[in-house]
Amino acid sequence: MTYPLLKGMRVVEGAAFIAGPSCGLYLAQMGAEVIRFDNIGGGPDFRRWPLGGNGASLYWEGLNKGKKSVAIDMSSPQGRELAVALATAPGEQGGLFVTNFPVDGFLSYAALSARRKDVICLRVMGWADGTTAVDYTINAAMGLPLMTGPADDPRPVNHILPAWDLLTGAYAAFALLAADRARRMNGEGQEIRLPLSDVASSTLSHLGQVAEVIESGADRRRMGNDLFGAFGRDFAVRDGRIIVVAITPRQWRDLVALLGLEAEIAAMETELGLSFAADEGLRFTHRARLYPLFEAVFARMDLDSVKSQFDARGVCWSSYRSLSDALVADDGTFRGNPLFEELRHPSGLTYPAAGPAATISGLPRDHLVAAPRLGENTDEVLSELLGLGELEIARLHDRGVIAGPQSEEIW
Amino acid sequence: MTYPLLKGMRVVEGAAFIAGPSCGLYLAQMGAEVIRFDNIGGGPDFRRWPLGGNGASLYWEGLNKGKKSVAIDMSSPQGRELAVALATAPGEQGGLFVTNFPVDGFLSYAALSARRKDVICLRVMGWADGTTAVDYTINAAMGLPLMTGPADDPRPVNHILPAWDLLTGAYAAFALLAADRARRMNGEGQEIRLPLSDVASSTLSHLGQVAEVIESGADRRRMGNDLFGAFGRDFAVRDGRIIVVAITPRQWRDLVALLGLEAEIAAMETELGLSFAADEGLRFTHRARLYPLFEAVFARMDLDSVKSQFDARGVCWSSYRSLSDALVADDGTFRGNPLFEELRHPSGLTYPAAGPAATISGLPRDHLVAAPRLGENTDEVLSELLGLGELEIARLHDRGVIAGPQSEEIW
Repeated sequence: MTYPLLKGMRVVEGAAFIAGPSCGLYLAQMGAEVIRFDNIGGGPDFRRWPLGGNGASLYWEGLNKGKKSVAIDMSSPQGRELAVALATAPGEQGGLFVTNFPVDGFLSYAALSARRKDVICLRVMGWADGTTAVDYTINAAMGLPLMTGPADDPRPVNHILPAWDLLTGAYAAFALLAADRARRMNGEGQEIRLPLSDVASSTLSHLGQVAEVIESGADRRRMGNDLFGAFGRDFAVRDGRIIVVAITPRQWRDLVALLGLEAEIAAMETELGLSFAADEGLRFTHRARLYPLFEAVFARMDLDSVKSQFDARGVCWSSYRSLSDALVADDGTFRGNPLFEELRHPSGLTYPAAGPAATISGLPRDHLVAAPRLGENTDEVLSELLGLGELEIARLHDRGVIAGPQSEEIW
Repeated sequence: MTYPLLKGMRVVEGAAFIAGPSCGLYLAQMGAEVIRFDNIGGGPDFRRWPLGGNGASLYWEGLNKGKKSVAIDMSSPQGRELAVALATAPGEQGGLFVTNFPVDGFLSYAALSARRKDVICLRVMGWADGTTAVDYTINAAMGLPLMTGPADDPRPVNHILPAWDLLTGAYAAFALLAADRARRMNGEGQEIRLPLSDVASSTLSHLGQVAEVIESGADRRRMGNDLFGAFGRDFAVRDGRIIVVAITPRQWRDLVALLGLEAEIAAMETELGLSFAADEGLRFTHRARLYPLFEAVFARMDLDSVKSQFDARGVCWSSYRSLSDALVADDGTFRGNPLFEELRHPSGLTYPAAGPAATISGLPRDHLVAAPRLGENTDEVLSELLGLGELEIARLHDRGVIAGPQSEEIW
């Protein structure tokens, strides 16, 4: 299920949770060899929920598909030395290291670049000053939970998708490839620091939200599911709830026509002296007038009739459905989606999992590779990458510096 | 404010809204030359909110910083021909095209690759089958709004951050560089299709949420701001609201110690026969027992005492604050953050905006470049990139096929 675009590239990952590991996952699923090292027994994310019924972390095995796993005791000097050696192992297409270890620890850029001058170190951080943070604390600090949720409820609402983590992971994969490209031109390594806080603050700048507050002098108010600055909201139909969005003039005209609201909208436009088709923002400004018209029509429709009419006309809409409903739907979202392949995971469970989100139209998807068992590749990697002999590897095992795969019964 | 990692690379962008343009923005801010073409008068995102008081789109000028702008009448055959010529213009480091135009339109991969065999086309899509979608309709279809928000309120809650758009944009920048790397090895171009729907479905697989539903047979319940599978939630303090997260054993022990809850927690552990430090999931399972202890302590604290004690100990927390509060805070989030630079934007407004989220520790940040005015670079790009002469360019202007920058009074 992977594509060979990054074939030959070798990335070492010493990271936990979502941002760093998803960066490694994206690289692995595009063909890079990604070697993840963890403490023996697993890093801080090895038991992260969701868990399978047998106690295995579905999260861990989801985020580490197609990687190799090395287990090291990083509390020992010898183990730390092995981690540094892995991150800086030779090879023209190696020397790429993704981590969320601290800036000043034993995996500092100074320590790494002393061993391999052209190493590229992509370091995911919480706050830019090194203070600890996770997606949800960054989000609270940026103001989004106060803008999320129904207008009649003042409680802050956290997003449940770890959006900042995910965005950081994808941006990290991009930044690593950018630095790799530069290194291929000029031979120079880099330390790239990527704090969740800066991903968030820069994003709010890019989207115009920083400028919005500066220019307006006020925060955006909570407005439930109303789409800011255009027409969009959730509406009840007879047997469910849908979201409808109309940003472009075509989307708006099609929606109004399909719902048979042309005359009423035209009357309102005459009364107000404006054109809703010409200016998407007016649909937002006057939404209190517009919504009742749409509510009345939708209240008489059911999901089937919305679907057949809206899909035929290309209206931008969706029903609100549960993930379990999405999983069994026959619309290609999950079932029948070529991204997904059923395979056996290290937990021992067999279920479908996804390859790369991107589809390369001219290349077949190669088969998906499951996550390794923790420590599954310890010996092989130390031998091939660091050139350790059998005896040396056996000694490291004896001293507890490294470990092979755990038995499956641990779950 | 940009870094020169991608110096020499030239990317043409024919895209609108967030995913495609943010991909181009990331590339531009890492040193690529990014040329965006739009319809004369602006594409469908040219008036997207938020707007400044003078009517300019703060969104558009946020997402197009550091790019060049070419304005073309794409309803004319000649204009379409120019768009194809731009996307496939010669140059070893060119031939990289980011778009959300339809798969089968005049900017199809077949049309592009007929003109330049090794073109790399990154195509952002809504649904994988070509059906229209935006971030918020995809999100509704994936089940997240039903899992978001207070448990005592059944209404679906849309996220307000366009997380799928943003993730798609960053992943697009990654995928484009991956294809560029492969092309430098083997000379081959690609069409990479990147639907929002597949970004979302694969993400829910990577995070273990697909497996969770399959294995448990049930959807995750709404649980307000409770952190799934570990300890974390919002709590009221005397003068505000905070979020506290404890996932690792150290985070948990520090939090419990700082709040003086060791004895009560130990008693609960004895009663229940478990260790909350050893298993983060137990803190979630027994959260109804744990929360009241924390609520009582926090109710007696204020933000200042939380801040001084928690920061000193490295507890993972944040206050819930508004974006306007974040903007004026003296903690480096926005004020004093070297990512930000005050500059004049095409709207005529002057306000701080962000460069790349990543900081390269050994390189200075070059100055940030504002977004172009629409059509600002039309003549220059057609001359330099397509080799059109002055007379030819003048004729295209006369026929209305291309346009230069609009006057600022249009705002």
